[in-house]
Amino acid sequence: MTTIGSLSPTHWYNLAADFPEPLPPALHPATREPLRAEDLEALFPRALIDQEMSTERFIAIPEPVREVYAKWRPSPLIRADRLERALGTKARIFYKYEGVSPAGSHKPNTAIAQAWYNAQEGTTRLTTETGAGQWGASLALACSLFGMTCEVWQVRSSYEAKPYRRYQMEVYGSTCHSSPSELTEAGRAILAKDPQTTGSLGMAISEAVEVAVAHQDVHYALGSVLNHVMLHQTVIGQEAIAQLVQAGVEQPDVVFGCAGGGSNLAGLGFPFIGRNLTEGTSSRVVACEPAACPTITQGEYRYDYGDVAGMTPLLKMYTLGADFVPPAIHAGGLRYHGMAPMVSHAVDQGLMDAVAVPQDEAFAAGLIFARSEGVIPAPESTHAVAAAVEHARQAGQGETILIGLSGNGVLDLPAYEAYL
Amino acid sequence: MTTIGSLSPTHWYNLAADFPEPLPPALHPATREPLRAEDLEALFPRALIDQEMSTERFIAIPEPVREVYAKWRPSPLIRADRLERALGTKARIFYKYEGVSPAGSHKPNTAIAQAWYNAQEGTTRLTTETGAGQWGASLALACSLFGMTCEVWQVRSSYEAKPYRRYQMEVYGSTCHSSPSELTEAGRAILAKDPQTTGSLGMAISEAVEVAVAHQDVHYALGSVLNHVMLHQTVIGQEAIAQLVQAGVEQPDVVFGCAGGGSNLAGLGFPFIGRNLTEGTSSRVVACEPAACPTITQGEYRYDYGDVAGMTPLLKMYTLGADFVPPAIHAGGLRYHGMAPMVSHAVDQGLMDAVAVPQDEAFAAGLIFARSEGVIPAPESTHAVAAAVEHARQAGQGETILIGLSGNGVLDLPAYEAYL
Repeated sequence: MTTIGSLSPTHWYNLAADFPEPLPPALHPATREPLRAEDLEALFPRALIDQEMSTERFIAIPEPVREVYAKWRPSPLIRADRLERALGTKARIFYKYEGVSPAGSHKPNTAIAQAWYNAQEGTTRLTTETGAGQWGASLALACSLFGMTCEVWQVRSSYEAKPYRRYQMEVYGSTCHSSPSELTEAGRAILAKDPQTTGSLGMAISEAVEVAVAHQDVHYALGSVLNHVMLHQTVIGQEAIAQLVQAGVEQPDVVFGCAGGGSNLAGLGFPFIGRNLTEGTSSRVVACEPAACPTITQGEYRYDYGDVAGMTPLLKMYTLGADFVPPAIHAGGLRYHGMAPMVSHAVDQGLMDAVAVPQDEAFAAGLIFARSEGVIPAPESTHAVAAAVEHARQAGQGETILIGLSGNGVLDLPAYEAYL
Repeated sequence: MTTIGSLSPTHWYNLAADFPEPLPPALHPATREPLRAEDLEALFPRALIDQEMSTERFIAIPEPVREVYAKWRPSPLIRADRLERALGTKARIFYKYEGVSPAGSHKPNTAIAQAWYNAQEGTTRLTTETGAGQWGASLALACSLFGMTCEVWQVRSSYEAKPYRRYQMEVYGSTCHSSPSELTEAGRAILAKDPQTTGSLGMAISEAVEVAVAHQDVHYALGSVLNHVMLHQTVIGQEAIAQLVQAGVEQPDVVFGCAGGGSNLAGLGFPFIGRNLTEGTSSRVVACEPAACPTITQGEYRYDYGDVAGMTPLLKMYTLGADFVPPAIHAGGLRYHGMAPMVSHAVDQGLMDAVAVPQDEAFAAGLIFARSEGVIPAPESTHAVAAAVEHARQAGQGETILIGLSGNGVLDLPAYEAYL
């Protein structure tokens, strides 16, 4: 029988099977009727569309995907004993570290799966958007493993500030454009209105989707937000459950994960929520978002577009509005106006909490972490670290805290330098 | 009984115990007499001096050092099945991947140990030199873990081309100067002679040593070359031996490691050589050096200084001459005029081979590796990959190749971009 925790999961875990109330469906942007599978066929392979709509509890991970996962998974679960001493906390702190992947973050977990399903159906090229560049680099990596190439639209502010991620995509044989670009109608329209725009994920999505829709052999891939992306990331939390049990922890009291589009948080947190719902555990899961882009804590829970141009389906989610352009904070991966529908629904159903963390607090916590544990957390991950540090300072004896460290900050060192 | 292979070594392995002929001693730069322990006391703590001169076969790893190691060790041993298919080789290829450490390379293995011994003896500050910056960042990391700070002289060409490593040192609370600097007599003398110099490791060593000698509470740390550094790195090869056995490989036929100062190569290779000498195995160990800095393949085996100013002891080693300034190749970690005395002696005794790899071949192999295995190798490591790739193309059925992947190339992406 398949269970939720495993050191080497054979299945992804689908929280949609266990929601007390069903997940509100995505709506067609023109008809506002629930989306049908065929509406997505211009963008995604059939297997991913099925996953997007599935309420099966467990979905088998294809063997070739597991083989690639095995190159760095299970990712380490590390006791933060040095951080505990630095804080003088009574709590035990663990972190689940996704920075050991070839791309330095959790993103390959879904990139590998998406590339493989596309390759199986004969796709030769993928398009996508990227913010800080972690997703673009991860999809480029995945494409190189399965004989495809990838065309990435990167949010202009990151494209200019962070050339290393673009080099990474090129090493993997893919190409990267600054978004908005002159290459698409959506891009040209945005540039005509505001030539100086710093760009946004919403704009870049419009561009990547437009190109995929226009070409028969080109598909689109999204690095967060959608249900199948949340699904693929659940290897993180499933491994963490098994690793904690190995370390003698039946259940952590609280799990902190950073939340931009929601995939890291869902990957870590959904297996714990699934256990809470079906096995009677009571681990609290907390979404940690930036105060500058406070989607859950300040947004509305309603239907909205995933992109600026209104080309995507309408998604029921916490949103700051599809035209919201977040300030150019350093945690580029958290600059998204919406929040994954599954994460939003989990919050709405009371299965998950959320906090907003100011950027300075996040970096301060990142420094404490780096100087005690050695690993420099990605700016995104520092939001989870900051929330955990604050919690740990008041925690009682015997409490156990789990931090999701979604990536390392090696390519974000200029951001730390700016903070220092 | 302590043996050489272990997944979680309790001891470092010292090849000096098993050399068929004893290692030629280091000589005092003034008297040319064999160095005495007290000659080194201005630079190093007593425990490291003892290790430098020891011929004990196994030296216990202090528990606090093992605890830090355990945060990322054992480092992964990965079957390169995708690279094998890309090459169409009959051989099995494995790589031992040190890039998962918090600094992204093998350097913390000795940095942690050196910082700990210094902290035990009351040192509050360390000085060192660094080329590409991997060593400086690793020592800064180690110092932050044991309540010290570190002052790093970085070779000017790298200081200017690679600011990220400096940011990394600053995140860990240390400082980094461009070398040659105006802060030391050695630096001022070099600048007076050649204000436009690109710098060299030899120059940076002179500066760091000068400052350590001048201050009572300041010690110096070296990231390669010396015997105690080779010793600390042997956790790599010891783990690899045990991991290969787990994978059903009693002994690899050939082990490729890149060689600059020699510590990565020694760490990976010495345990295999030790087994060859004492247990009858016959794994061939190959030093892979850059054609632009061909210390072993083109240098002389003789006594020479470790630095430009002639402040270090005289070491019997393969050398291109202490005043050799290597061209500014991308593999900054391999730009050293000499080679560790223990590695040099191993070559001289016929226990190890050497090959020189041109930079373009190294990058070409790095790209093949990245696009098949996912991990982008450090430019240093690509030299070992290139030699392994060439070997694999002609290898027979059943041969097993081990590559030492000393680090990842994430902070060296501009070098790949330049190659592309």
